[in-house]
Amino acid sequence: MSEILKQQIERITPLTNNEFDYILSHFTTKKLKKHQFLIQENDLVQNDHFVTKGLLKAYYINQEGKEHIMQFGMEDWWITDYQAYFNQNKATLNIDCVEAAEVLCLSLHNREKLCADMHKIEHFFRKKSNAGYVALQRRILSLLNSNAKERYEQLLRQYPTLFQRVPKSLIASYLGVSRETLSRLSS
Amino acid sequence: MSEILKQQIERITPLTNNEFDYILSHFTTKKLKKHQFLIQENDLVQNDHFVTKGLLKAYYINQEGKEHIMQFGMEDWWITDYQAYFNQNKATLNIDCVEAAEVLCLSLHNREKLCADMHKIEHFFRKKSNAGYVALQRRILSLLNSNAKERYEQLLRQYPTLFQRVPKSLIASYLGVSRETLSRLSS
Repeated sequence: MSEILKQQIERITPLTNNEFDYILSHFTTKKLKKHQFLIQENDLVQNDHFVTKGLLKAYYINQEGKEHIMQFGMEDWWITDYQAYFNQNKATLNIDCVEAAEVLCLSLHNREKLCADMHKIEHFFRKKSNAGYVALQRRILSLLNSNAKERYEQLLRQYPTLFQRVPKSLIASYLGVSRETLSRLSS
Repeated sequence: MSEILKQQIERITPLTNNEFDYILSHFTTKKLKKHQFLIQENDLVQNDHFVTKGLLKAYYINQEGKEHIMQFGMEDWWITDYQAYFNQNKATLNIDCVEAAEVLCLSLHNREKLCADMHKIEHFFRKKSNAGYVALQRRILSLLNSNAKERYEQLLRQYPTLFQRVPKSLIASYLGVSRETLSRLSS
């Protein structure tokens, strides 16, 4: 299962098997059932998670009890409450499993240790963070431009497989549109 | 003027004067007048920009001619069209000066060279990118949660000095609310 992590790193920087084994020794593994929580609001967030199997969602519940989806996580994606993880604060997000999942867990301590030990891993995480930053800017623009149809089509283009795995209600919550609007768009 | 860049880097990692001189030798400087463009849509984006003086805005103009502000940039902030810069694509954003400005320009080539040469600079940029990622996630949540009053108060708390320097119409465009809504909130 860890092979997809190696492949992801090697799309940015080459690794020997020994180097990868060393990197992997800093991760722990976790298996979760469908609907099981990986993180709950107010938890201390110890780990970032690389998904090797399954599908998770990270979401915020507002004062009226409404869910807003911050991100999905499926195979080859990373997911956690980054604000809480990087700042070692309590979680404001919840993360649970849309499908049963397996994840590789990386503590902030081990992440910083790996980055200090291996320049190429610091390089890998910088590149991943830059790409993530650009993806979030694109999402902000799509939220500001607030044309539900365009938002829907953009998501469909970017992540076609997500649509086959995630209920419509969750897509609507990610896009910030009502279930009814989404039904109209996708019919 | 470059002293604030040194201070920013040293909040993350200590530097000798020689190291900072070496880093600084990879930047060029640019002075801009009020309303002058730093980047226009469809430009090739060669540089990231560290603001040493003044105030800029990066914005997208939609098909109806409406402006959406992606970010502001003032002293000690970085600003560019990151999607275009990191992917070496043409700009989809415009960046111009709300106030006359001075910036330090870093090409992608020089950024990558610095990061390869100096592990501590790769570390600095990774940490900055992580912090930027978290700030964008917070903004997405505030857009999804779409309570204009909370969004306004959050921005006021985060960046109090911005409000004294930026016209209300631009704050409204950043928050994704109408000018009228903002006037009601801030009166």
